[in-house]
Amino acid sequence: MLRRRGVILPAFQIHGGVAGLFDFGPIGGRLRRRLKNAWLNHWLSEGDIVEVDSPTITPESVLIASGHVGEFNDYMSECNNCNSAFRSDHLVEEHHPNPDSLNSADLDNIITERAVVCPGCGVSDWSNCRPMNLMFSTQIGAMKGSRLAYMRPETAQGMFMLFPALYRHFRGRLPFGAVQSGKGYRNEISPRQGMIRLREFNMAELEYFIDPDVHIPHDFSPWDGEKFHLVQDPEFGEPISMSPREAADANVIRHPTVAWFMARTWDFLTSVGIKPDKIRFRQHEGDEMAHYASDCWDAEIEGSYGWIECVGIAHRGCYDLNAHEVATGDSNLRAWRSYDEPRIVDKTILSGVGSIIGPTFKSQAGLVNQALTEIDTTSPTFPFELTLADGATVTIEEDMVENKRVQNTEHGEWFLPHVVEPAFGIDRILWHILDHAYDETEKGGEKYTVLHLANSIAPIDVAILPLMEKEGLDSLAESVHRLICSVPNLVSYYDGSGSIGRRYARADEVGVPWAVTIDHESLSNSTATIRRRDDGKQIRVSIADIAKLISDNSLNQLF
Amino acid sequence: MLRRRGVILPAFQIHGGVAGLFDFGPIGGRLRRRLKNAWLNHWLSEGDIVEVDSPTITPESVLIASGHVGEFNDYMSECNNCNSAFRSDHLVEEHHPNPDSLNSADLDNIITERAVVCPGCGVSDWSNCRPMNLMFSTQIGAMKGSRLAYMRPETAQGMFMLFPALYRHFRGRLPFGAVQSGKGYRNEISPRQGMIRLREFNMAELEYFIDPDVHIPHDFSPWDGEKFHLVQDPEFGEPISMSPREAADANVIRHPTVAWFMARTWDFLTSVGIKPDKIRFRQHEGDEMAHYASDCWDAEIEGSYGWIECVGIAHRGCYDLNAHEVATGDSNLRAWRSYDEPRIVDKTILSGVGSIIGPTFKSQAGLVNQALTEIDTTSPTFPFELTLADGATVTIEEDMVENKRVQNTEHGEWFLPHVVEPAFGIDRILWHILDHAYDETEKGGEKYTVLHLANSIAPIDVAILPLMEKEGLDSLAESVHRLICSVPNLVSYYDGSGSIGRRYARADEVGVPWAVTIDHESLSNSTATIRRRDDGKQIRVSIADIAKLISDNSLNQLF
Repeated sequence: MLRRRGVILPAFQIHGGVAGLFDFGPIGGRLRRRLKNAWLNHWLSEGDIVEVDSPTITPESVLIASGHVGEFNDYMSECNNCNSAFRSDHLVEEHHPNPDSLNSADLDNIITERAVVCPGCGVSDWSNCRPMNLMFSTQIGAMKGSRLAYMRPETAQGMFMLFPALYRHFRGRLPFGAVQSGKGYRNEISPRQGMIRLREFNMAELEYFIDPDVHIPHDFSPWDGEKFHLVQDPEFGEPISMSPREAADANVIRHPTVAWFMARTWDFLTSVGIKPDKIRFRQHEGDEMAHYASDCWDAEIEGSYGWIECVGIAHRGCYDLNAHEVATGDSNLRAWRSYDEPRIVDKTILSGVGSIIGPTFKSQAGLVNQALTEIDTTSPTFPFELTLADGATVTIEEDMVENKRVQNTEHGEWFLPHVVEPAFGIDRILWHILDHAYDETEKGGEKYTVLHLANSIAPIDVAILPLMEKEGLDSLAESVHRLICSVPNLVSYYDGSGSIGRRYARADEVGVPWAVTIDHESLSNSTATIRRRDDGKQIRVSIADIAKLISDNSLNQLF
Repeated sequence: MLRRRGVILPAFQIHGGVAGLFDFGPIGGRLRRRLKNAWLNHWLSEGDIVEVDSPTITPESVLIASGHVGEFNDYMSECNNCNSAFRSDHLVEEHHPNPDSLNSADLDNIITERAVVCPGCGVSDWSNCRPMNLMFSTQIGAMKGSRLAYMRPETAQGMFMLFPALYRHFRGRLPFGAVQSGKGYRNEISPRQGMIRLREFNMAELEYFIDPDVHIPHDFSPWDGEKFHLVQDPEFGEPISMSPREAADANVIRHPTVAWFMARTWDFLTSVGIKPDKIRFRQHEGDEMAHYASDCWDAEIEGSYGWIECVGIAHRGCYDLNAHEVATGDSNLRAWRSYDEPRIVDKTILSGVGSIIGPTFKSQAGLVNQALTEIDTTSPTFPFELTLADGATVTIEEDMVENKRVQNTEHGEWFLPHVVEPAFGIDRILWHILDHAYDETEKGGEKYTVLHLANSIAPIDVAILPLMEKEGLDSLAESVHRLICSVPNLVSYYDGSGSIGRRYARADEVGVPWAVTIDHESLSNSTATIRRRDDGKQIRVSIADIAKLISDNSLNQLF
């Protein structure tokens, strides 16, 4: 159905196709757009979160600093017989409960001992496994001046780069956040599971910057009646059902802001049509955690592939901002924290000996004394180079300085904010929306399919059906169709061919919530029947009201 | 201002930056989003256009078929002294009026004769120029099984791939169209001109599929009062001012559907804030036309870089669908055209000689006879291989067949649709929106900047300003801010620091159309002043009404 109706289909099929690349067709394109818009609106409604956009092409140095060049790998085994490459952990899936946690020696041992055969040719003759980086690489620029770059594996790094702009925008007041939705890339060794494991995917991430020393008073009351299904790291305890407030209080979820984002993620998923009883949160085990995270919970959704990770909510600490600060020496990734009371600090500093500094540096002496007070060690290795405010460098000998005790008043400090990141796999969520909405029954001995999509993300809002394509019914239907399409964010679909029953069935199959039939009475009194997808009930409404009733979501009240 | 306020800023700056890659910051991110949404709504409102989305990673074979691997080049010259690479046509800009049209020999001649010096090192010692392909290349998959691919240079090819899905969706009725907005990539040799020439850019394209034999009755009346500024190919005539109807009738614009898209493009550009007198349409000259186009008009916008191409409206004929059909042998890129009357056609076909076919092919004989009637030549070279419906192949000798005259009734034919494509450079349009909206005046001896953005694309709808951040004004302002943000598609910004005048100035600078001030009266009677950006006028309104007044765009009526 997904292929036939143009929801999702393998890309580049007439050229033989490419595993892990998919198209969103005439139905799927709008479904994807509405899901992305729903996601953006969900977070922008917070008031302290803004949208940004950064390039997908990312220079190597950024991804060295972030750890992706070193760490973003899967182990790969090559078949010596047919040259096919496979993920080593996939090869041992039947022989180990959590192959993701194995190192290369373990993987090779299992492959050899269990005589795992190649899924391609059936022979068991493997190269030793080795790490393969999962980023697509490319070159920026031409010839000798070109630079190595990668297609981004996540949108997050672009938002860390933008921290200084965000900090200015929010006038230095934490907490604040940024969202970005766009393409992410992962050069899978052997993609499988359709929409679940793509080489190019739609992702949507939020980076929320907080001061680790400040308690944020999250309001958990909206979820006090909900029990979330929480699967802890087995080291900490058994799976448990708790409200987010209880889980934060009991330290099952170790940071309240993580708990709050889990709750808001639950809101989002249920609002777009994911069934609440098919959502669970699973905590990462220690050796499964990404290189940057200090605590991580996946929102997993149950569907035809079992429980699948669709959202990761990670406490990244200050890992990323610190990594970029260390790599670049740039100090703009910090935030200012004012002390409640100024602090008087006793300090020992280096102080120039006037009788030597003066004659030695003459007109530069003032700059030298200034620069000396700003260095942060009192026992340097002499002689050393000192950079002055005007950029000049001078050499300081041991006899030029002495230690001096001073009292400073400090009003605050610059620190690296911590980051809590909910990262959403839009394609995986979309897959599960379809999975949960899909309902196959029978009608008159034939298979009958209804897609029970939420009205807010349905790809088509209403189908316009002339009872027949003559006697002016077609032109009236066509004009109603154009009228509805002219309303921003409303989309209708004109369908004139086949029996009305067939046309209802076509609309139900792709989740169109409403179907308007234009009949002879429509010509005389400007009314039409409108049919509700989910129960087939029909009422008669004025044609002039249809667009408004649908766009302000008030039609259900008339039934 | 663009950098300081987080509209657009060079990407990856703390890592040294990359020419031709830009970030959209907290202001620019939403501006870009609203512009894209306005674009999508503009076209989806037509009723026969749908949105699709296809991968950015594109396998080589697709781009060989489309001509991009062979044709998507710029000539590049390398400096033998400093190894820098430059576009050859840029090097000769001062010496030729239209360097884009020169071939490699011409370019080398001018560079040598005029002793053009290297912009990097000042020396004049150049390699001969050579074509450099402008696509970013990458590899899909691992090791021996990997495939060469490119980051897409346009979104169009993905839509041609989806033609069969579109054709099914529209139930075989032309004309119809598809839109796609997303990233495009162009590995510029030496990017310059800021947002005008990017290596990764936001593009938005529409492919409109038409039957070349059917006249589409476009309604040009909405533009009969407008005179478009048309710069024809000099071969055809002088620049001229005409309405689109006049230009189509006079064959200045050679296809009415091209004229119609030019008019709808003009609607879009003016609706998002481009000044009508700074738009002109320029026809491509013969040697400037892309390899796929049979007629092309650029919408150029005048701004601080002069007249810049921002939209290209090309009649692509059946170039692309034909190219993919030839490359793949796939016949699904065609549309069906019914004849008004069935046609009786006299035909000569190959017919099997029963006395030989029967004994030779036994149980296959029926399939052989069937396959013979379907081949389209009556004088093949004998013997030849014939593929049967069941996939088997047989050898046909000359004595097995004879020519036979038959009469067929044909009801229609499969043909390759033509394509009219308006392709929009979203970043360039956004640049010019900012350029046209930017207004610098003076206030109290200081520079004062107002960005007169259209309300529909302003990145922030309203600023919420507490008169002071105490006595409950701050918490009321904060709750108004949250209330407005909770309305889908509305965004407000809370600003509490500095004088009200300073805060108005900050809001004006980034084009916030409305500013609400919460004062002591607000506490007592739940009203607030609302100030209009463009003239500074203020009125008092009920706080409860603000969100609705802004979202249904009715505030201006109260002034």
